[in-house]
Amino acid sequence: MKTKEIRFASRPAGLPTLDNFEFTESELPDLQDGEVLLRTVYISVDPYLRGRMRETKSYIPGFEIGQVIESAVVGEIVESRASDFKRGEVVVAQLGWRTYNVATPAHLMRIVPGVSPSTALGVLGIPGLTAYFGLLDIGLPKPGETVVVSGAAGAVGMTVCQIAKIKGCHVIGIAGSDEKNKYLRDELGVEKTINYKTAGNMFEALRQVCPNGIDLYFDNVGGVVSDSVLPLINERARIVICGQISIYNSEKPEVGVKPQPFLLIRSALMKGFIITQYASRFGEGIGQLAQWFISGQLKHAETIVEGFENTPKAFIGLFKGENLGKQIVKV
Amino acid sequence: MKTKEIRFASRPAGLPTLDNFEFTESELPDLQDGEVLLRTVYISVDPYLRGRMRETKSYIPGFEIGQVIESAVVGEIVESRASDFKRGEVVVAQLGWRTYNVATPAHLMRIVPGVSPSTALGVLGIPGLTAYFGLLDIGLPKPGETVVVSGAAGAVGMTVCQIAKIKGCHVIGIAGSDEKNKYLRDELGVEKTINYKTAGNMFEALRQVCPNGIDLYFDNVGGVVSDSVLPLINERARIVICGQISIYNSEKPEVGVKPQPFLLIRSALMKGFIITQYASRFGEGIGQLAQWFISGQLKHAETIVEGFENTPKAFIGLFKGENLGKQIVKV
Repeated sequence: MKTKEIRFASRPAGLPTLDNFEFTESELPDLQDGEVLLRTVYISVDPYLRGRMRETKSYIPGFEIGQVIESAVVGEIVESRASDFKRGEVVVAQLGWRTYNVATPAHLMRIVPGVSPSTALGVLGIPGLTAYFGLLDIGLPKPGETVVVSGAAGAVGMTVCQIAKIKGCHVIGIAGSDEKNKYLRDELGVEKTINYKTAGNMFEALRQVCPNGIDLYFDNVGGVVSDSVLPLINERARIVICGQISIYNSEKPEVGVKPQPFLLIRSALMKGFIITQYASRFGEGIGQLAQWFISGQLKHAETIVEGFENTPKAFIGLFKGENLGKQIVKV
Repeated sequence: MKTKEIRFASRPAGLPTLDNFEFTESELPDLQDGEVLLRTVYISVDPYLRGRMRETKSYIPGFEIGQVIESAVVGEIVESRASDFKRGEVVVAQLGWRTYNVATPAHLMRIVPGVSPSTALGVLGIPGLTAYFGLLDIGLPKPGETVVVSGAAGAVGMTVCQIAKIKGCHVIGIAGSDEKNKYLRDELGVEKTINYKTAGNMFEALRQVCPNGIDLYFDNVGGVVSDSVLPLINERARIVICGQISIYNSEKPEVGVKPQPFLLIRSALMKGFIITQYASRFGEGIGQLAQWFISGQLKHAETIVEGFENTPKAFIGLFKGENLGKQIVKV
């Protein structure tokens, strides 16, 4: 059985380019007892993968040069030698960027029945869980509080916005186009939005829409956008550091406004987290997200690129803000 | 009854100078029912007072120009019209920089019996409580962890070092003179120390003494010293932002290495706090601190300047690192 695959060809300096990826073909080993063969249906491309392309230590091991790149993949079982998974079932797993993968059941998760399988990579997958635990477990939103979300039109950000609404908060979304912001307001009920590319003075823009200050900031982007939040935080504010996409492609430690003095005078908290730390509570998270999703309280958006060969391009596009909601490759 | 007093004459730009203070004399009002007259014995000078000298909003109201400066003061009751406090009793309270103050019992705290009254301004006062709750409630030290303390030879810092030792941690102290560091090692049992003024590359100096990384950083100083800690923090590290003395005299937001990317990849927490938030637990804190102090597990150091007229000078000296332990003025 032959599979196409995408290998990590070279470490990017700055924004990744197509040269950093290599398309190869290889022969999969014969299926062993207990294994399944998966045909790739959807591939998730995620900003955090940029961190795995560095040589320096991050929270998960870096990719080795020559290795097949891995991310969350939805696949259909086309052959099974595992007793608990049948041919035709659709599952999600952390797998290689291949058109076919061999996997063992321990690594597979069944997807929520009755919904599009692609949601397993977004609102009902790791991005949804990231929003759920980051906002609720670290951010601790209370009704009436002002919640600001950067990267608000991404898969995590838009889920955060909606959960914050469900929890009775005033929600301000920051995204990089008027079209994205219109979607956030009209489709997701986000009260106020800021286009950081056209806002000019971000601090002033935030001050306008946050007359009562900021109680909770869910940070997906870092950089100047996040610096502008600091002078507006209220006493005991919480800043959830979920991502820093604005600097994933920079090679040096970021220099900018230091948050420590603001955290000090406001008794505020800033905390990073890695979603795998919540693995034991994923069932709870997916259960609640699925309930909100099926009842219509939680919506999602996907940007789907067609064709396995476009996977690197879709990944690179994340850093140009090309996606509304979850960026997915349909194979 | 006449009292000498020290008023806030002008807002400092940068390091405060003697010109920012004015010595005046005034007539105290006659004692009313329920009030006591206190003769000032000790005055506490504290770095946080610099924040009250700014015009911008901090966590406590700023001083008005012309106002008598306030801080923690130990006083002896020389006259009492309050039923529950007697002449001759020694108490601690937040009072004006005056040789005599009139106060009501609601604002007075009795001091721990059998110890020097000056401890009520240091190890058994607000600095001790700041160390206790900051370290234990936010820092959550575990036996065997590596704890780094900046401003380690100050009143808060040296208490943090010792509590961390009591909790079974490896303790690294950072201070600004070899003499201070010798005291920390020889008298307080701090394992390793760094003199930040002579260390050269702080990151390398820290890496040498923290072979297992840093689990908890108790930050009293901010600035470059604290930047150097960031690359060494371990997964789920806690950074307690207690003070930022290195920048209290600067007029602009500090620019430097941003901690967010480090907090993200290490799932680390950074939190500021204000000790008054723990007011309901001060009894618990003082009780434990006094027990450790009386049993000899917790030591203290004081730098005592004599003379009411030297209060501004002692305050300014804090920013030059002139004090070992708690800086106190004996009136």
